[in-house]
Amino acid sequence: MDPFQNFSKEQLVARKEELSKIYEDYRLKGLKLDMSRGKPCTEQLDLSDGIFDNSRNLVTNDGFDCRNYGLLDGIAEAKSLFAELFDISTDQIFIGGNSSLNLMYDLIAKAFLFGLNGFEKPWSQAGKIKFLCPSPGYDRHFAITEQFGVEMIIVPMKNDGPDMDMIESLVAEDESIKGMWSIPMYSNPTGVTYSDEVVRRLASMKTKAKDFRIMWDNAYAFHHLYDDQDKLANIIAECEKAGNPDRAFLFSSTSKITFPGAGIAIMASSKENIAHVKKQISYQTIGYDKINMLLHVRFIKDAENLKNHMKKHAEIIRPKFDAVDEILTRNLDGKGIASWTKPKGGYFISLDVPEGCAKRTVSLAKEAGVTLTSAGATFPYGKDPKDSNIRIAPTYPPIEELRQAMEILSVCVELAALEKILSN
Amino acid sequence: MDPFQNFSKEQLVARKEELSKIYEDYRLKGLKLDMSRGKPCTEQLDLSDGIFDNSRNLVTNDGFDCRNYGLLDGIAEAKSLFAELFDISTDQIFIGGNSSLNLMYDLIAKAFLFGLNGFEKPWSQAGKIKFLCPSPGYDRHFAITEQFGVEMIIVPMKNDGPDMDMIESLVAEDESIKGMWSIPMYSNPTGVTYSDEVVRRLASMKTKAKDFRIMWDNAYAFHHLYDDQDKLANIIAECEKAGNPDRAFLFSSTSKITFPGAGIAIMASSKENIAHVKKQISYQTIGYDKINMLLHVRFIKDAENLKNHMKKHAEIIRPKFDAVDEILTRNLDGKGIASWTKPKGGYFISLDVPEGCAKRTVSLAKEAGVTLTSAGATFPYGKDPKDSNIRIAPTYPPIEELRQAMEILSVCVELAALEKILSN
Repeated sequence: MDPFQNFSKEQLVARKEELSKIYEDYRLKGLKLDMSRGKPCTEQLDLSDGIFDNSRNLVTNDGFDCRNYGLLDGIAEAKSLFAELFDISTDQIFIGGNSSLNLMYDLIAKAFLFGLNGFEKPWSQAGKIKFLCPSPGYDRHFAITEQFGVEMIIVPMKNDGPDMDMIESLVAEDESIKGMWSIPMYSNPTGVTYSDEVVRRLASMKTKAKDFRIMWDNAYAFHHLYDDQDKLANIIAECEKAGNPDRAFLFSSTSKITFPGAGIAIMASSKENIAHVKKQISYQTIGYDKINMLLHVRFIKDAENLKNHMKKHAEIIRPKFDAVDEILTRNLDGKGIASWTKPKGGYFISLDVPEGCAKRTVSLAKEAGVTLTSAGATFPYGKDPKDSNIRIAPTYPPIEELRQAMEILSVCVELAALEKILSN
Repeated sequence: MDPFQNFSKEQLVARKEELSKIYEDYRLKGLKLDMSRGKPCTEQLDLSDGIFDNSRNLVTNDGFDCRNYGLLDGIAEAKSLFAELFDISTDQIFIGGNSSLNLMYDLIAKAFLFGLNGFEKPWSQAGKIKFLCPSPGYDRHFAITEQFGVEMIIVPMKNDGPDMDMIESLVAEDESIKGMWSIPMYSNPTGVTYSDEVVRRLASMKTKAKDFRIMWDNAYAFHHLYDDQDKLANIIAECEKAGNPDRAFLFSSTSKITFPGAGIAIMASSKENIAHVKKQISYQTIGYDKINMLLHVRFIKDAENLKNHMKKHAEIIRPKFDAVDEILTRNLDGKGIASWTKPKGGYFISLDVPEGCAKRTVSLAKEAGVTLTSAGATFPYGKDPKDSNIRIAPTYPPIEELRQAMEILSVCVELAALEKILSN
């Protein structure tokens, strides 16, 4: 499997010297290439500039002036739109602000301060709290639970979602496990979509903690790259069917549909959970930006129109994903030192290098002008136990820069792997 | 002073019967008039419709594309604008979201969860926490501290601000008093602006609690009604001068400058406080809506332009404030049963009726189709110890409706007072 296994020491040293020269040439170019964050590129942003074309007469269909106070949980037509998009009912939806991450943080903060729906005892008075963290995963999720002092348990990601045998056995026995992070569709960074079987097991499994909650961050629900698209089961409906209606909170936003940071964010759950959250949130704000909601509804219109809009996104970023795969394949395939995902959607490619080589690879790339997400960031506490996972975010850079960055990264992967082999 | 004192019982009964007939006539009209909340009227909202005229090329002066992620604490030109408006430096400002109330809530939530700048022990582990609540005041402030289980202490409002002798003696002795609410300019609902002397005493007083904090909700900083305008001293500068640089957090928003709920909100304090808060907030969001910030800066431009814009607001709402005063004067002046404020700015008129008559007055008004803010709402826990304060919010209704509502309210005030006199 690993051709380097058959190399003599001399051959390995010669290959390393050859790569070092190529690397040094790149380094001297003083490039500045950024593949660190999942940001849309300018061409993608341009797709939504028309959103301001409908900024006259900012009144909803039911006659509410969006320019004034009111409607804590969002305007009716925005609820209807998301109800259609996620196949839930409008009373299961809370529309709040520009950031789904903020809604997730806020929900956890309220669980710690005041307790969840049906549970008067806040988590801050419940002793140790633990969260399951399918990994590699999203660094900003893990940062929130770290800030709250939550103990995070790594659950390995498989091809159909997190390791369900492990999850079921953990939650059945440990009452301090109160929640779980997830990006169930085109997951960050693996691109995996949870299978129907995984969704059903999550919805129906027995949990020792009665207030066990699934943070269902469905950030990439519409972010397909190809015609061959993943499908995700409806967690809210599955939880209800399984007799655990309050178990899951779904989050999503238009950040990578329209404008990151200037879109609208939603939270959905059982009707009772949403009513409870709404009451809690009524203390902190009179309401969120309804003008932006109305502009979004007028722009996105419906599921069919959104599909066409997302196709335009895919046309811009698909060549970038393809380029990453092409360059990694050309440079690293068959060498036994790297494997990577080929996602059908989302914003990331997950690259695995030999154990103990991720930090070194990222650091080599940095020196050569290629900024990647920090090695380890995809695991709780920023610590990848195997130091082998690297997240590639191909969407933001122009494709020529991306191609150059991937050539450099390929050299860094091989160089770091050879350093390790030679040091043994 | 009180002419009813000289009335015989028969005269009182006769007057009451006369008023009851007038009241009944109003009641039968089935009116629906709302003076409950401080909302701008449609004509005021129209003043800012031009804000979307500059929605092309959403790039800041320093080249940042507001359509993408980044800049947690706001765009540079928005900081510069608010630095000019509040005479503070740009590194003392955090721009966040559409709601200053949400920033206040969030700061208190973080004090409870993680502790304030320089204090590792969160308030949730500090035993009893108390807040000073100058009253009558803003119901939404009091609701936040009530949600956190904070014990609220009423401090009477005087003509130049809260009773400083009382405040100084309380905070000097009680370490559990950790904070104070305030609307220092054109206060809700009294219209009072804190005098320079009050501001200086607040900034310099000795507090037993080292983490005592002033919540300085400067919501009506630019909301003058007349050419004769109040001026407010700079709390941030005064705190710094007095050697208590971290004591005050200023909050403000454009909610009643442009669009309520769709404006931008700011928080300001010492550079160190803001750096600390920024780090804490970095866990919960990637950033707030920068497009809206840019649109606001392009629309508001500078202090001079804002002044002209606020004059247009004043021209619309000044006649409403004048009408309230005119009708209350005509109907109630000299009867010894009511006193009210004549504010030079802000959104409210504070009406005091005889002790024990506020609830009855509001309830009579409600029955006759006039909705007012609940009696008691202007005090902590929604309980006015004297049951005498009523908040009038004259801005939202069209002036003819407002005049009618004030005629009805006048009748209700006199009727409730006569009921009380006759029951003694």
